[in-house]
Amino acid sequence: MMQKPFKVALAGLGTVGGGVAKLLSEQKDVLAKRCGRPIELCAAADLNEARLKELGVSENVKYYNNALDMLRETDADVIVELIGGADGIAYELCKTALNAGKNFVTANKAMIAHHGNELAEIAEEKGVFFGYEAAVAGGIPVIKALREGLVGNRISEVYGILNGTCNYILTVMRETGRSFAEVLAEAQKLGYAEADPSFDVDGIDTAHKMCILGSLAFGMPIDLKALSIEGIRRISDLDIAFARELGFGIKLLGVGRRSEKGVSLNVYPCMIPRSSSIAHVDGVFNAVITEGDFVGHSMFVGRGAGEKPTASAVVADIADAATGRGLPLLTVSRSDIVTLPVVPLSERVGEYYLRFEVCDKPGVVADISRVLGEENVSIASMIQRGKTAEGAVPLIMTLHESKEASVCNALNRIERLESVLAKPCMIRIERL
Amino acid sequence: MMQKPFKVALAGLGTVGGGVAKLLSEQKDVLAKRCGRPIELCAAADLNEARLKELGVSENVKYYNNALDMLRETDADVIVELIGGADGIAYELCKTALNAGKNFVTANKAMIAHHGNELAEIAEEKGVFFGYEAAVAGGIPVIKALREGLVGNRISEVYGILNGTCNYILTVMRETGRSFAEVLAEAQKLGYAEADPSFDVDGIDTAHKMCILGSLAFGMPIDLKALSIEGIRRISDLDIAFARELGFGIKLLGVGRRSEKGVSLNVYPCMIPRSSSIAHVDGVFNAVITEGDFVGHSMFVGRGAGEKPTASAVVADIADAATGRGLPLLTVSRSDIVTLPVVPLSERVGEYYLRFEVCDKPGVVADISRVLGEENVSIASMIQRGKTAEGAVPLIMTLHESKEASVCNALNRIERLESVLAKPCMIRIERL
Repeated sequence: MMQKPFKVALAGLGTVGGGVAKLLSEQKDVLAKRCGRPIELCAAADLNEARLKELGVSENVKYYNNALDMLRETDADVIVELIGGADGIAYELCKTALNAGKNFVTANKAMIAHHGNELAEIAEEKGVFFGYEAAVAGGIPVIKALREGLVGNRISEVYGILNGTCNYILTVMRETGRSFAEVLAEAQKLGYAEADPSFDVDGIDTAHKMCILGSLAFGMPIDLKALSIEGIRRISDLDIAFARELGFGIKLLGVGRRSEKGVSLNVYPCMIPRSSSIAHVDGVFNAVITEGDFVGHSMFVGRGAGEKPTASAVVADIADAATGRGLPLLTVSRSDIVTLPVVPLSERVGEYYLRFEVCDKPGVVADISRVLGEENVSIASMIQRGKTAEGAVPLIMTLHESKEASVCNALNRIERLESVLAKPCMIRIERL
Repeated sequence: MMQKPFKVALAGLGTVGGGVAKLLSEQKDVLAKRCGRPIELCAAADLNEARLKELGVSENVKYYNNALDMLRETDADVIVELIGGADGIAYELCKTALNAGKNFVTANKAMIAHHGNELAEIAEEKGVFFGYEAAVAGGIPVIKALREGLVGNRISEVYGILNGTCNYILTVMRETGRSFAEVLAEAQKLGYAEADPSFDVDGIDTAHKMCILGSLAFGMPIDLKALSIEGIRRISDLDIAFARELGFGIKLLGVGRRSEKGVSLNVYPCMIPRSSSIAHVDGVFNAVITEGDFVGHSMFVGRGAGEKPTASAVVADIADAATGRGLPLLTVSRSDIVTLPVVPLSERVGEYYLRFEVCDKPGVVADISRVLGEENVSIASMIQRGKTAEGAVPLIMTLHESKEASVCNALNRIERLESVLAKPCMIRIERL
């Protein structure tokens, strides 16, 4: 026997909101069977009323031009927020809805990254469902995998390719040999990158998602400020070419590690061996890798953004709310959340790729090697190429496992050598 | 406030059962926090009583040497079956437990593949939880991903690397150039393959898992007989070498496709481009790929077997039972399960790799090409190598998209040509 419908009120009919409205309409029958009850869109809020007709879902859906008005009036079982932005109306809607005891679903990673701890507290107090599967890695059900599928594991590491714009740019740079600036301009023309690309290419979007993954993996509060964030602007076509020669690909990665000292959560571009699966996660795809003490190495790959994949994740949350599969927002109850000391990136021990721009004259390699040796850093491989037009040549080195602080000390000294013509480029290597 | 403990009775203390006992003990604290209540092992059944002490979990655990006795006496909240085998005591325990209204968790793919429909019916009638996450792809939470994470999608394709033994053998063959027989013998010595390897290398284990995935993906009853099953015995070191030259890797794959005509579920070794992520899922790792109409392409990778990864999956089910995250065994209620027509493999349209053993004399290629042409099959690439000691040479072809029935017709005719010295080898190509 079918139960009564589960009613959905949708705030925001942009790309993702439109996708959710379409999904609820097109998959009506399978959703009802899989959830044991119909899932019905009953209300929608957007500044543009025409959008509802455009989506072909206006029948029996009450329109509001203000999401807060909708919240006040609706008897929906869940409020779905797809307006976006860390603050403003999205945040107000969320707090008001939770305080009113409404189930809440959002795709808003910025809001969770900035206000997740506070929102978790309200949701727990009010005992309501709070879903945000779509906030990390789009269509990949990775929050569910971490919280439920891997529930029996202590997670020691979590890595993510979490930004499709960066991954697309790095993929095209590798495939075409073109420069960052050129590929970015093309991506902007094609609509794959924003007019102001900073949010994506400087790693901020990845950091938002990474601090959520870190909290879920390690049971700590969400702490955006704990992250050191590097984007991909500094990756040159030379680095891409040398990475290929050394058997690596370059990816912008979120890197989270739990050790006895504490937790290290960072975002940086790094080199990954081409023999590993994640190196082949190209273009608009996202990937999340976890290391659990029982399950070992796991990887989850899928589309990280876009109307339909994000709608898929939003609707997974709606289905969980409809069937009562709820969980505390941060996996464990807030009384069990533990603040962990932050291990700075300078304590990272790992391999490194270095690129120097040097004069092509005798003694340069010896000078650089001597400084590295004095800082206790040892060279794993070296590539030297012929003269460029300007008499400057690239000198490439990879380092055996070294402490980042020592590498940085060495690079600061090397930069001051007379035969070194530019600031050295350093890219971390991760063997995933 | 903590709720009362959720009690677990464990039938079978072999490799996986031991892993579950250890996990419940070692992760006691995180599990209690994540589930909102303690998870306690209260009873265990095994032929060997010493095993309980050996695992260091005997305290407060009641021992039984007969699982059915345990079931009769215990007040556990869930019965976990890790005895194995499609029939016999595992099947009897399962039916008896479900009929007695007990929640049930198992890792037994053979039992689900053979009796899943009947067990689903009983579980649904009795309204009990039935978890079998560990039955497919070990530690990868793919059943949860399919049923919950991708709940909003119609799945059109599902692929799996589902047998670690086959994947290990194929990986070592590729890395070392050695023959199937040689690598199998070594795998048996190392304990990676059974003394009787047929269950693994002939594809039966993969078929068990694939018919479960097919049912979940397409909403059809479990139907092991619908699968055509080919193993990896026929893969020669020559094929591995030529695959590499053509830019492919060889994997044993479960392949499920839903079309307007019906459903096609098969197991066969196939060639996969080395540029795709799944080609780099090597050794003991498993992978599942799905195509959903909203989410698009997704991939889930992890350890497919072994004590700890399988225990991770079993405990995910126990946690779901403890928190009430239950679902019908086959995703939808049995009244909504739809039997689909089976599309035979002969109707497959795809690319193919062919290897012929031919006399090195003029006209051979022309003869073979003519037959292929007459059967409407067109050649995409060809490789011919120098004479072997015996005067026979391998002739390699890949075919453009062709209908399998036509390819088979052509191969039957080609086999009878005088200059063709052995039965031709055909391997399907899948571009994943």
